[in-house]
Amino acid sequence: MKIATIDTQSGGHVGVLVDADTILDVTAFAAVSPTARLVPGSVRSVLDAGDAGLELVKRCADEAAGSADQDSLSAQGILRPFAETPLLAPIPDPRFILSVGMNYGRHLEEMSGTPTPTHPAAFIKIQDSLTGSGKPITVPPQCPDMIDYEGELCFVFGKSCHNVEAEGAMDYIAGYTIANDVSARDWTPEVFGSNSSFGGIHAWERNIMGKQLPGFTPLGPVMVTKDEIADPHDLQLTTTLNGEVMQSTKTDDLIFKLPEIIAYFSKWYRFHPGDVVTTGSPAGVGLGRKPPVFMKAGDRIEIEIEGIGKLSNMLVAA
Amino acid sequence: MKIATIDTQSGGHVGVLVDADTILDVTAFAAVSPTARLVPGSVRSVLDAGDAGLELVKRCADEAAGSADQDSLSAQGILRPFAETPLLAPIPDPRFILSVGMNYGRHLEEMSGTPTPTHPAAFIKIQDSLTGSGKPITVPPQCPDMIDYEGELCFVFGKSCHNVEAEGAMDYIAGYTIANDVSARDWTPEVFGSNSSFGGIHAWERNIMGKQLPGFTPLGPVMVTKDEIADPHDLQLTTTLNGEVMQSTKTDDLIFKLPEIIAYFSKWYRFHPGDVVTTGSPAGVGLGRKPPVFMKAGDRIEIEIEGIGKLSNMLVAA
Repeated sequence: MKIATIDTQSGGHVGVLVDADTILDVTAFAAVSPTARLVPGSVRSVLDAGDAGLELVKRCADEAAGSADQDSLSAQGILRPFAETPLLAPIPDPRFILSVGMNYGRHLEEMSGTPTPTHPAAFIKIQDSLTGSGKPITVPPQCPDMIDYEGELCFVFGKSCHNVEAEGAMDYIAGYTIANDVSARDWTPEVFGSNSSFGGIHAWERNIMGKQLPGFTPLGPVMVTKDEIADPHDLQLTTTLNGEVMQSTKTDDLIFKLPEIIAYFSKWYRFHPGDVVTTGSPAGVGLGRKPPVFMKAGDRIEIEIEGIGKLSNMLVAA
Repeated sequence: MKIATIDTQSGGHVGVLVDADTILDVTAFAAVSPTARLVPGSVRSVLDAGDAGLELVKRCADEAAGSADQDSLSAQGILRPFAETPLLAPIPDPRFILSVGMNYGRHLEEMSGTPTPTHPAAFIKIQDSLTGSGKPITVPPQCPDMIDYEGELCFVFGKSCHNVEAEGAMDYIAGYTIANDVSARDWTPEVFGSNSSFGGIHAWERNIMGKQLPGFTPLGPVMVTKDEIADPHDLQLTTTLNGEVMQSTKTDDLIFKLPEIIAYFSKWYRFHPGDVVTTGSPAGVGLGRKPPVFMKAGDRIEIEIEGIGKLSNMLVAA
């Protein structure tokens, strides 16, 4: 099942794909479907309700797909062409987004030969940085010159967990999505050029802040439930910039696999349904190229992951 | 006006003090007051509504204070003794908590002589780490030995802002509260002992993760609206551990003042109503003492700031 959040004038609506080209506006479906009236008003609330929440959404999708009134549902905008439907991030309001870095072997080589870490490393991205597939990314006037992309496989929690073991950790996952961890890299040379620990910490903080600007975390287009992904460590990830392939990898190049990521970080963090973890970006980011490649207004950046879909955004001037 | 979130069996209720000893459960007041029915269901939603939201809460407080049925309101649990009322963090669900560090001159001296920064430094705390005044802080079994306190003045945003100047920045603030930035310091020696930039970054991340455990951000007891604080840079802050003074300072020792903090970080972050910024901790934290002092089950840690109140929590065994 592929779940999305539809951007409407009355806020985000829960959406679910009924086929590859058609999305059901579950929130709007409540006008005619008693089942849909039971579905909470946001994807995060659906996840908070656990398996029962997802089952209700599935039931709505089946009802709409089997309905004799498909024309009427389309006329009311309850069934919509997926490609033309404005989207927010599938979970627009996660309590917590954890962004794992330095997690693909060949990406470390391109980033000035960063040594392979002995344990996972990650930073936090803020909810406000999220945007949906199809939404423009505004080039910030205060740091317009070094805008980079990072295509990443993400997983979404379906159950709360804290201080858990790697064994069994996949049970806490509800599904998968795609993130573009966009960065304004203006401060990155300062990080890699720094020799002192404290200078490094300050510069590292700026590096992380360059990832928090509005619209710098495109997420989506959908969250696919985990039953549809046989092995998240065997997916093709491809990033294109204006159609040219910039990143292409199998997710089997991940240094730390998903269960290890959950076990490690849950020692400190307590995760909740709807929390998103981005698992790191493979080789091919703009900063690592010779010469470097940065994005500018008019560029289209797309990340496709097998079994999930394509996250597509265009950069626009402020 | 002092606003709080009351912890009830049906979730957080909006609360407001009608006098120093009495809190009005605004959410419950809706049973008898048409005005209270207009108040949104959470303090964050009140702040999202801007000045009109706060004015509605004020109107409820005035109505209850002037009511001829005070005994009846008390009998129904709508007016409650403040000291006996269970609290959550005043904003239990902020979209974003930014925690400024290294911001008091004498605290930098005690932390192995950290040099004075040329610009503010900060990290993100997660929503899940929040708890209210009066709630227990559970000692984590996985890192029980180096639990430290940091008393901090906080401000809460009342309006969205991004890339703004220091001049006029105080207009975005709705009010003030108190945080205890609790840390499991187990990884801190690794930070201060590291000479390499990459080692420093990894260790710094662990230092920050040691501040994210459940209950490690007590916040409150209330948010006081900014009209009640003439100058946030002229407040007495006192932290006591089991009654003994551990931190005592005027907030005029802050290196970066509130308008500078907003202007600097808003270059990257977009802030929204209900977002919380902790402004840094003064000298006297446990790690900086000779010998170091860490908290254990049974200890009571209290932070009092003039004009706001006292944030009080006890540590308990897991």
